[in-house]
Formats: sequence, C-alpha cells, structure tokens
Amino acid sequence: MRFELTKEFLEEIREMASKGSTSYIDQRIIHLHPADIAEIIDELENEQAKFVFRHLDDELQGEVLMELEEEVREKFINSFDAKQIASQLENLDSDDAADILGELSTKRQLEVIAEMNEEDAADLVELLNYDEDTAGGLMQTEFIKAKIDWAVTRCIVELRRQAEDVEKVYTIYVVDDSDKLVGLLSLKSLLFANPKTKIKDLYQETNIISVTTNTNGEEVARLMDKYDLVSIPVVDLQRKLVGRITIDDIVDLIREEADKDFQMASGISENVEANASVWRLSRARLPWLFIGMFGGILGAQVIGNFEVQIGKIPALAFFIPLVAAMGGNVGVQSSAVVVQSLANGTNQFTTILSRVKKEALLGLLNGLICGSVIFLVTWMLESPTLGITVSLALFTVIVFAAILGTLIPLILHKYGIDPAVATGPFITTMNDVVGLFIYFSMGMLVFGI
Amino acid sequence: MRFELTKEFLEEIREMASKGSTSYIDQRIIHLHPADIAEIIDELENEQAKFVFRHLDDELQGEVLMELEEEVREKFINSFDAKQIASQLENLDSDDAADILGELSTKRQLEVIAEMNEEDAADLVELLNYDEDTAGGLMQTEFIKAKIDWAVTRCIVELRRQAEDVEKVYTIYVVDDSDKLVGLLSLKSLLFANPKTKIKDLYQETNIISVTTNTNGEEVARLMDKYDLVSIPVVDLQRKLVGRITIDDIVDLIREEADKDFQMASGISENVEANASVWRLSRARLPWLFIGMFGGILGAQVIGNFEVQIGKIPALAFFIPLVAAMGGNVGVQSSAVVVQSLANGTNQFTTILSRVKKEALLGLLNGLICGSVIFLVTWMLESPTLGITVSLALFTVIVFAAILGTLIPLILHKYGIDPAVATGPFITTMNDVVGLFIYFSMGMLVFGI
Repeated sequence: MRFELTKEFLEEIREMASKGSTSYIDQRIIHLHPADIAEIIDELENEQAKFVFRHLDDELQGEVLMELEEEVREKFINSFDAKQIASQLENLDSDDAADILGELSTKRQLEVIAEMNEEDAADLVELLNYDEDTAGGLMQTEFIKAKIDWAVTRCIVELRRQAEDVEKVYTIYVVDDSDKLVGLLSLKSLLFANPKTKIKDLYQETNIISVTTNTNGEEVARLMDKYDLVSIPVVDLQRKLVGRITIDDIVDLIREEADKDFQMASGISENVEANASVWRLSRARLPWLFIGMFGGILGAQVIGNFEVQIGKIPALAFFIPLVAAMGGNVGVQSSAVVVQSLANGTNQFTTILSRVKKEALLGLLNGLICGSVIFLVTWMLESPTLGITVSLALFTVIVFAAILGTLIPLILHKYGIDPAVATGPFITTMNDVVGLFIYFSMGMLVFGI
Repeated sequence: MRFELTKEFLEEIREMASKGSTSYIDQRIIHLHPADIAEIIDELENEQAKFVFRHLDDELQGEVLMELEEEVREKFINSFDAKQIASQLENLDSDDAADILGELSTKRQLEVIAEMNEEDAADLVELLNYDEDTAGGLMQTEFIKAKIDWAVTRCIVELRRQAEDVEKVYTIYVVDDSDKLVGLLSLKSLLFANPKTKIKDLYQETNIISVTTNTNGEEVARLMDKYDLVSIPVVDLQRKLVGRITIDDIVDLIREEADKDFQMASGISENVEANASVWRLSRARLPWLFIGMFGGILGAQVIGNFEVQIGKIPALAFFIPLVAAMGGNVGVQSSAVVVQSLANGTNQFTTILSRVKKEALLGLLNGLICGSVIFLVTWMLESPTLGITVSLALFTVIVFAAILGTLIPLILHKYGIDPAVATGPFITTMNDVVGLFIYFSMGMLVFGI
C-alpha cells in the first residue's frame, strides 16, 4: 500500500518517458502522492523529468514542484514562462508559493505577479516582505477564523466558505470585531456543539500560544515542540491575526537546523546538498581547512621552539599526534555538550562557574584514567621517563581542554555569537597548540634538557 | 501572553514554596500550561519541587509528569506509592503512560497495574510489549474511528462518545466490519456534510499512508515528514487498526535523533543529559578517548620507524600536527556528507563509484589549494625542501582522506552497521595514522635520508 521507489520501476519509467508514452504516466504515476511523484522526477534526467512533469495537471504540478529538491526545482522553474508559473503558484498554499517566488529574480517575480489574480498576488507580495527565518516568512495566509459573537450554525456556514482555500484545518482561530486573536476553537467542539450555542461560550481563551510576525523561526519551533502544537497563529504587533504556521514546515525547519549543526560540527561551513557542484562543495569546506592549516602552522611554531630537544631525544616526537588529538577530542566533547544545552534551552539557570567546575571534575577523572593507561603503554613501548612525560602531559591537556571546551562556547554565547561555530576545527586547533606547548615543556622538565 | 520563566519569578516561587504557601501556587502556577509548570519544577530543589507538584490535581500531575526532565521525573516517581502513580497514569494518553510505566522496575510495574482500572491496564500491558523504537512503542491507543457503512448523523453520535478519551482529534480512521483500516475522513468533511450522507461516500480511500506496529521509528518519522502528516494510523499484520502516532512524539524523536547524531559526531557515545552524574558522563566519553589514544599509540609506532630521520632533521617533526589534523578534518567532512545523505535517504540511487569519484575530485581541488598555500608558508618559515615535503604530503593526505572518508561509511552501511559511528574520532584516527606514514615517507624521498 505504501509507495517505494525501486530501481526496476525507475528503469521502466525512464524507458517509457524516452518513448514519450503518456498513457504510462496516466496509469502508473498520476495517482501517486505528489511527494512520490517528486521523488521519481528528482531521479530522472532533465528531458525525461520535464516530459513527466508537463503531463501532470496544473494543481498536481504545483504540489509536485514544492516537493522537488531545490536544484531540480530551480532548473524546472527556469524553463517555464511567467504564465505557467503563475498558474502553478495559484494552486499552492501561500507560504509555499512565496518560497518559490522568493527564489526568482526580481524581474521574473514582477512578470509572474502580473499574471496572477489580484487577491492571490497581494497576499504573496506581503509575504515576500518578511525575512524567511521569521514567523512572517514561515506563515501561510490560509487559515480559518470565526467571530466571537457568531452562533455555531452561522459559524459552520462561514467556515464552509473559508475552508475552500484551506487544505488542512487544525484549529479555528477566534477573533473579535477588530480581527484581534482572542482564542481557539477545536473542530471537535464545533462538531459536537448545539447549533444555537454562541462561539463565546465554546472557545478556549486561556493558554493561547501565538507568535508575532518577527518571531524567530527557531523560537517558533521551540514553542510548537514545547506545547505540542500542530499549528500556531501569527499576529501582528496590534495582535491582529495575519497567518498561521503548520507543523510540517516546522519539522522541515528542525531537520534543516539539525543538518546544519551536524555539518558545522563536521567542519562544513555552508549548508550544501550532496549533489551540489564541486566548486560549491569546495567553497563550503575550505574555511575549516584553512583554520586547520593555520592551527597546524601555529603548532609547527610551538614545536619549532623545541628543535634542539627533539634533536637530542627524537622519541619526544612520537607522541605529538597523541597529545594533539586528545586535546582536540576532549575539547570537542565538552563544547558539544554546552552547545547542545544552549541550543535546547535546557539548564538555562546553571551558572557558568558550576558548568566549568563539573567539566573540570570530569576532565580530572578522564585525565587520570587516560593518563594511567598511557603511562603503562609508553613505559612498555619506550621508557619510563617518556611514560612520565606523556602521561603527565596528557593529564594536563585533558583537564585544560575540558575547561577551554566549556568556556569558549559559553563566552561566545554571552557575546551573541552562535556557539555552534566553536565546536569542530576551531576548538581542536586551539587545544592542539596549547597541548603541544604543555607536552614539550613537560618533556624539558622530566628529561632535564 | 506567552510564559517566560525569569530568574525573579523563580526566586519568588522558591521563597513561597519554602514557606509552604499553597495560595501562591493557586494564584500564580496552577493556571499555567503543564509544560510551563514542568519547566518551573525542573528548576526547583527536591523538597520544593515535591511541594508544588503535590498541590496540583491528579490530571495536572499526570500532564506535568510527562513534561519533566527524565532525571527529575525518575526521582518523583520513586517517591510515590503505586496507587498515586496509577491515578496519574489514568489521566495520561496511553503512549505517555506506557513510557512512564516502562521506566519502572517489573515489580513496581505489577504494583501499579494492580491499582489501575481493568481496561486502561489492558491497553498499557499490550503497549509495553512493543520495542520502544517501533511504531508499536510510539503509538497511542486513543483514536477516533468510524465504520464505513455509518451515516453522518450516526457517526457524530458515536464520535462524541469516543472523543471523550481522545484529547486531540486530527483525522477519523475509517474501518470495515472486521476493523481493518480502509480510509480516512477529515473532521472538516464531516462538519460540512449532509447528515444523511454515508461515510462511504465521503471518505478518502487513496494515498492512505499507514505503518505496522513493527515499523522502525525513524521510518515513521521519514514518512510523516515526507507526506506532511500530523498523525499516522498504525495497523497490525492483518491490517487491523490498533493505534495512531501523533506528530508531537515524532518531533521529539527527530530532535533526539539529531542530538544523538551530533553527540556521536562529537565523540560522545551515549545520549546523556548535561545534568547527569560525572560518572555517567565519563563513561559516555571514555570510549572515544580510548579510540583516540589507540590511534595516538599507532601514530607513535609509525613515527617511531622514522626515529633516525627525525634525529637528522628535527624540523620534520614540526609539521606532524598539521598533517595529522588535516587528514582528520578532511575525512570527517567527507564522511559527514555521506552519513547525512544516507540518513535522509537522499540520492539513494547514486552509485558508490560516482560518490567516490566526486569526493576524490573535490579532494584533488582542495588538496591543490591547501598544498599550494602550505608550500609558500613553509618555504618562507623553514626551507624550500621542507616546503616541498609538507605540501606534497598534505596534497596526498587530503585526497586519500577524502576517499577513505567516503568509502568507510558506505561500506559500513552496506553491512548494516550505523555509519554515524564512522565519523568523528574513528575516521580522524585512521587518517592520522595513514597521513603520518605518507608524510614521513615523502620526507625520506625529498630529503634523501
């Protein structure tokens, strides 16, 4: 019952598309869910993809368009004229239509808008004004509202008219005479209500969670997650109801943020899709590689100060990678915990001091364990003197890295800089340099050189 | 209108709670959203937290319980007797109740179940049988269903009865005589329908997305995301409707998975909360530190083979951290992209060969850029011979790390191992060792030592 795109099915579609068989599309593709059709088109070559797409009706075209991968969609849109785009946009929810319109050049935007009907165009033009990371940029203007002084019968008649434009109805927003949001009404309570009851005796007026158009997208996600909402009303600064945000868009946003954080932690600075061009991928990765090189050059400077000592005891060089890597690893672990708890807003009242104390304690514990293990190994493999040097250095580096890894993101956060940039190569590099200095200083002391 | 927990408010609550002021709770806390009350209780000391909690009524207690942080909830539950827990569970949705029950020891579970009413207990006992990572473990048994041969009037009467148990109604599931899922019905279509219409003329029967009890949780999330669903019906192997999963639980799941992936990429092997004990935190972090140490020891062995060469030209040691770090960074970048595209199911038909080719190309490009930069820097800081050695080594290491970073997660995935474990310290370590070998071999060649 559930659609699964197989290699065989894809082969068949490719063959039929290159033959130009429209009857095959009618039989096998047109009845699929738009998301599935988009999945198929994403996998087809340019000409075949266009052939399938053009054979869908206007409404389906709009829905499929929304589900395509960004790069594929871009290619498609560029091959349409303004009239075609306009008719596809008219079948979409306003937030989706605004997203697609926002991807076009200003010149194309004007052409498309000129082809649309006045009312739809006005909504879109307004939505385009909002920053895409705010509630205004995320909201759609399709929603259902009821006046507080209506009776249930009147309400149902009015809603039926409104509902034509609204694909999914979750909650009815109750407004007063000046269109200000005053409460919520569930479809359930309306369905079971006595026809003569007034809305004002039915609606929920406490614990109404709403956002304003300038609320940050991540804050919207946090609220919908916290209060388990499937839609959230958006009001302007006068509390007038202007739109709603649905959970499917927030799920997308949460996934994108998570992907971005993961990439950031892995040293990729821009959110690029795997199928982007080599140039774009390179540009996204080079910043971190340069930071890494810079750190490596600093490290070389530090070691350079101990050239004489290495000449005397080359074995000191053996454990350079170990000390550097462990400092980096511990630093990343500590900073990841801080970054995550800052992002999730957990433990917001924990003071910096108590966090650092805990991480330092943890560093002491892990430093003792790792230091002891490495002492035994180095003693056996090399010499007890080197064992003492490496284990003492490792212990110090771990404690130091734990404290630094906790402090840096907290300080960045305090000064309004996204602490997510502090994990990955940045902290690794910093701890490398400091760790090497500790290690060689320790070596000079222990070996007396 | 929106609640925001401030330091001042928290201070006030602490003071009032330690004074034992129940009127304060009545006035300022009881009317808040359960999620907000939980946020307050999370921040209170043990005794104060219990004082506030015990003053809430049974229903509110259940709702607040669900929203507490896991560690706080555990402490709470342990301080209640079986009868108290039973009455709190009866006010919860079955999936939440099962989650809490699942956290108890088997002995306590039996005690609590004995105190519950027969019907609720039966539902819970069945839910406990499912693995918590499957649709069965995520679903709740509260949902609304309609028989396909009912008329709208009959349907509304029956639904009113059913709706008492179901807090949030999104979709009505349509079943046949043997309780098999045959379609969906929106509340909207029911609300606007003629009372005499039959359900069979109203319901949606195509594109019905459902899952079976044994469907993996991540697959459920993927489906709800792909098809923009707010709830998904769960059927057993005979297609009988047994439950539904709502989007709020899936949002939690997506967030948890993202947190876990982020921690994994940062070298933390278990999902632990920031406020866990130092012992637990240490245990979560040591595995990766041990892998790092193991890699460092291997690295020491590799460098050990070049002791004579380092004795002759100590400057070779200067760039050990640079070569090691860059191999690690590039490897992590490449593997992160693969891991993410595997997790999101994108580009599933891209062959291994074409991925590796692309990453190799990217490695060549970035290797050339980084190699050129480091050649100039090393030449200026040290000597042209060292410049040639370091830049050639760096170039080779980057290309090699890019290929390895792509291949390893793909191979792990092919053999059914979660490729997320391949990023972070594991790939870093591997590339360190290989990178050092390349570097010193290059050094021997260039310096002729």
